[in-house]
Amino acid sequence: MKKLYGIGTGPGDPDLLTLKAVKKIKESKTIFAPNNKGTSMALDTAREYLKEKKIVLIDFPMGNVIRDDYKNAAKIIFDEIGDGDSGAFLTIGDPMIYSTFIYIMEELEDVDIDIEVISGIPSFVAGAASSKRALTVKGENFLLCDEYDEEIVRRVDSVAILKTSKEKEKILDSLEYIGFDYKYVKRASLKEEKILKNREDILKDRDYISLVLAKKFIKDK
Amino acid sequence: MKKLYGIGTGPGDPDLLTLKAVKKIKESKTIFAPNNKGTSMALDTAREYLKEKKIVLIDFPMGNVIRDDYKNAAKIIFDEIGDGDSGAFLTIGDPMIYSTFIYIMEELEDVDIDIEVISGIPSFVAGAASSKRALTVKGENFLLCDEYDEEIVRRVDSVAILKTSKEKEKILDSLEYIGFDYKYVKRASLKEEKILKNREDILKDRDYISLVLAKKFIKDK
Repeated sequence: MKKLYGIGTGPGDPDLLTLKAVKKIKESKTIFAPNNKGTSMALDTAREYLKEKKIVLIDFPMGNVIRDDYKNAAKIIFDEIGDGDSGAFLTIGDPMIYSTFIYIMEELEDVDIDIEVISGIPSFVAGAASSKRALTVKGENFLLCDEYDEEIVRRVDSVAILKTSKEKEKILDSLEYIGFDYKYVKRASLKEEKILKNREDILKDRDYISLVLAKKFIKDK
Repeated sequence: MKKLYGIGTGPGDPDLLTLKAVKKIKESKTIFAPNNKGTSMALDTAREYLKEKKIVLIDFPMGNVIRDDYKNAAKIIFDEIGDGDSGAFLTIGDPMIYSTFIYIMEELEDVDIDIEVISGIPSFVAGAASSKRALTVKGENFLLCDEYDEEIVRRVDSVAILKTSKEKEKILDSLEYIGFDYKYVKRASLKEEKILKNREDILKDRDYISLVLAKKFIKDK
């Protein structure tokens, strides 16, 4: 039997890897990661544990990724792992949240490979820690999204919005309109981490590894 | 200056502690945790690193905890940590998600103590890994709640509901009615972990460390 670990490397600080992620990376012969111009943030995070490993970067086209791309990635992974061996697909954050691994796992469902998912710290969880801001408290709820929808956001107590770069101004306008207080966290847990509160500063920033945390401004206590 | 780490110990498997959590626990002289009848799941998770530490279990009343209880906890913590020393408050899951630490942190805002939050793997993230079930994919959203509200849930793509014990039947009825597929994860990441799909099995279970993961049954692709 072949074994594949889907491992979340967390938000980028190597110290935020779990003990289990480190163990399973060490056990794996081959390490897979999505190719981002010859590099990968997930690989960088785990760099210390990759000596003597075979690294396979998997290409995904820029822009719209289609099912054939995931099929192709699944085939590469299946072919690279020898019988009785283990491989690890590394992904930033957590493998079950907005990750390429979800689709690869689906494509491997019907072939003879054992898959195990190892959780990682999601970026919005790290962002909450950095900004010392609760994501949610007892009796309240929290929404995670990568596309902003005012009709849903106005009904929840707290929200994290990922991939805000395209519509940042529209999002901030809407959050102000519906009475939400916001913070912008850029590269949570990394040396370059910044937490911005000022609207103009947020609009000026162009970093794609960033997110907005927002919550209802005044809540009845 | 005194230093307090708010450390998430994750869902219960000691291997799901982050490297950072272990480092900061080792650095701390005093370890605090909420007292659950003389024990604490967070302490149990970190047990291996607690030798020669002073352990302070903090009492919270059963049922309704009021602000004075958090004030009292904050005072105990502040008094126990010596000048120039570090202490760590351990909490299961993540400190910024449905945790006692959020309130303690608020009570310590105006006193002379440096606070750092160390993220942990939240239970619903571990539950998704165990059940190999995506929490959310590109273009979709995800709601986390500890009180079920059908009006919000029907508008989102995916949901995790914590503390379902009281209203389990009502929740399952509603999820079936609005067309959501569900799984029940009990003690994610622990030896006693179980993933239940059958309605009757779920209703019979009485474990309070459990959650429901649900998502829209059919989604247009």
